Amino acid sequence: MQEVNVGIIGLGNVGMGTLGILTENAGQIALKLGFHLRVKALCSRSIHTKKLPAGLDSVLQTPDWQEVVQHPEVDIVAELVGGTGVAREIIDGAIRNRKSVVTANKELMALCGAEIWDRAIAAGINLAMEASVAGGIPIHSVLREGISGDRVTTLYGILNGTSNYILTEIEKRGVSFDHSLQEAQRLGYAEADPSADVDGFDARSKLAILAALAFGEKITPSDIYTEGIRRILPVDFQYAHQLNHTIRLLCSARQTPNGLILSVRPALVPQSTILAGVHGAYNAVWVRGKYGEDTFYYGRGAGPSPTGVAVVSDLMRVAREIRSGSPERVSPFAHERLGEYKPIPVTLQHSAYYLRFRVEDRPGIIAKLAGVLADKGISLDAVLQIPAENWRDLPFVITVEPTSELSIREALAEMSAHEFLVEPPLAMPMEKSL
Amino acid sequence: MQEVNVGIIGLGNVGMGTLGILTENAGQIALKLGFHLRVKALCSRSIHTKKLPAGLDSVLQTPDWQEVVQHPEVDIVAELVGGTGVAREIIDGAIRNRKSVVTANKELMALCGAEIWDRAIAAGINLAMEASVAGGIPIHSVLREGISGDRVTTLYGILNGTSNYILTEIEKRGVSFDHSLQEAQRLGYAEADPSADVDGFDARSKLAILAALAFGEKITPSDIYTEGIRRILPVDFQYAHQLNHTIRLLCSARQTPNGLILSVRPALVPQSTILAGVHGAYNAVWVRGKYGEDTFYYGRGAGPSPTGVAVVSDLMRVAREIRSGSPERVSPFAHERLGEYKPIPVTLQHSAYYLRFRVEDRPGIIAKLAGVLADKGISLDAVLQIPAENWRDLPFVITVEPTSELSIREALAEMSAHEFLVEPPLAMPMEKSL
Repeated sequence: MQEVNVGIIGLGNVGMGTLGILTENAGQIALKLGFHLRVKALCSRSIHTKKLPAGLDSVLQTPDWQEVVQHPEVDIVAELVGGTGVAREIIDGAIRNRKSVVTANKELMALCGAEIWDRAIAAGINLAMEASVAGGIPIHSVLREGISGDRVTTLYGILNGTSNYILTEIEKRGVSFDHSLQEAQRLGYAEADPSADVDGFDARSKLAILAALAFGEKITPSDIYTEGIRRILPVDFQYAHQLNHTIRLLCSARQTPNGLILSVRPALVPQSTILAGVHGAYNAVWVRGKYGEDTFYYGRGAGPSPTGVAVVSDLMRVAREIRSGSPERVSPFAHERLGEYKPIPVTLQHSAYYLRFRVEDRPGIIAKLAGVLADKGISLDAVLQIPAENWRDLPFVITVEPTSELSIREALAEMSAHEFLVEPPLAMPMEKSL
Repeated sequence: MQEVNVGIIGLGNVGMGTLGILTENAGQIALKLGFHLRVKALCSRSIHTKKLPAGLDSVLQTPDWQEVVQHPEVDIVAELVGGTGVAREIIDGAIRNRKSVVTANKELMALCGAEIWDRAIAAGINLAMEASVAGGIPIHSVLREGISGDRVTTLYGILNGTSNYILTEIEKRGVSFDHSLQEAQRLGYAEADPSADVDGFDARSKLAILAALAFGEKITPSDIYTEGIRRILPVDFQYAHQLNHTIRLLCSARQTPNGLILSVRPALVPQSTILAGVHGAYNAVWVRGKYGEDTFYYGRGAGPSPTGVAVVSDLMRVAREIRSGSPERVSPFAHERLGEYKPIPVTLQHSAYYLRFRVEDRPGIIAKLAGVLADKGISLDAVLQIPAENWRDLPFVITVEPTSELSIREALAEMSAHEFLVEPPLAMPMEKSL
């Protein structure tokens, strides 16, 4: 039976994980496919120093990706390089050479997915990107196939394992953000430059892709309000727990009567919800559909093998499509804003909010802050202060009843004029609708 | 653009849910597919009394399923009748007439899936059965596509929403099984004859299908040890909570060095695990893979709309396959026992166990029971007794360290000879490996 041949470009963590599964699990893969999926070419800038699995001697091994995309026997190119530079050239080169493409590249697909998908369809090749979001969770497959008949109204995600690890360490052990970040770096969960993870940009790319798939609307990263987790203190978890909530870096895409509100930001999540049970370096996606109601998906967000499973499963899907001669389908990325799910500014969001203040102790502070809220028509829900002796700057919390993000921002701006504030107030939405 | 036409046979809950989504969500379905999916024929024994959505006047409406499977314009037949009688005839008739088939029939697919799949492949038609297991959770799509590159080692499921509803009501409100069952019947969650649900047979069919998909091994319902939830008392939850566990009707398929152990039975599940968070009429599936590690899937197990989403998503998948001319792939049902995942008897299972006894109070009982366990080489872990005044028959619990199910059964048989037992002991495995 005729085999389908794969060329892998990029042998970092994901590439090596993919290669390991393709070689070790080759028998079961062939059983499931009814034909063999063969590794035909491997490319890495440092190919000659890589410790490859046995049995790959007859496979092309090269530092030059051009050799892979031009290889006459390669049917599918796996782009596992990442980033938006050479990765883009590789994908374009593969498409030009009429190779199908599997990619794990969230950044590129979030920015240029629509364009790349169109080129793939025009060239008659197949394209897949399961590994670009939420590593081991087959969320693309779910949104494009499994629940394609539904009409998604809300999608929540915990899409950055590093941030979730850091937050749950702060929660569990009461350590500071800096301490927890250093620990994550020591364990290899966080990069030397952690900004993409802890400032929310990585999660933003992933949400852009998932929202495009879920809503069929044109979404770009710039549509997504993004705020990271650097300001979260251990005491925020104490307050959140008092309120029967926890704190997660929550990606959300919500249909409202006026359009879609998209954000990546720390938020209070009720302890009773299944999302609150996502600890450590796990990812999760929670989807509400008009017909299917709530579904929830959970798994490893990263790691060579879990992400490798996503790449290999995509390779199997594309190999089947190649074998059955079925062309790439309708693009999951829309070009036009269809209207129903048009992104609108986060300032239009309505939510209850958690506001945390650090102030120099003096009389009348709460009265002043409450006065500002009242002026903006915001109803105060509760004032919380944990008795503490070691705080010089008295962190305390005000929760407010559902109001618009715009009102909150205006109130916070006004409050910031008061010199008793040690730092700007921290505002987080409190999710109730899960 | 050419459309794909659907005939629906069976307009009960699932059929009406499917029809509702197909008509109401037609625009978005066409957008995702790039062509229209049209309802062409409807069949129900009581078709003339059905309140159908508007706009279906030109659609064939008949009480005779033969008219649907023979309809020259129907491309896909949705078999939503259920059971193993006429449903089998409908599917066979559709295949004979070279119509593709989408089915929600767990019982039939668990019993005859391999045979039906072969006939479909031989006839060159496409087949899909997402709705047969776990309603709104796209678990077929996940196992066949999303994580197909992985090698599953363990699968746990909560696959019967009625049982889960009953158990979580007993847990939450301390009511008896009978009371909770009546409540479930009143709410329409349980049938007048609840046996399929509460005795585990419904879950067994579902596990047989999922295990076939996950392990690629020939699995029949008779391979699965099955025990229902009728004997669970409120006090069992009290003891389980003392042990930091809860109780669920757990479907499990576990690879061991000797083969696959399959069971549907009440089991103690650690409270800290995500499976313990599955309350009410929800379903969930937890999968451990050699490469992808743990993933978890959760959603509505039943209901017209969630199951309808599964049927409609399958119709979309099959319509795409028809349009692209791609034939049905390798059957997910194996014919041969491949060996690696061969089912072996549950008596070979090793686990810690929870043993609950109801006895007439007299001295020396625990010593006698402990003696029997010692004779079988079973190590006692803890003895628990909640102080209670109103019990005449003193339910108490012994937990034992991991041992074989065979030893437990032998010990229980020996214990049963003692006349101080008011009823046979209740044994449940305590899951630790989640």
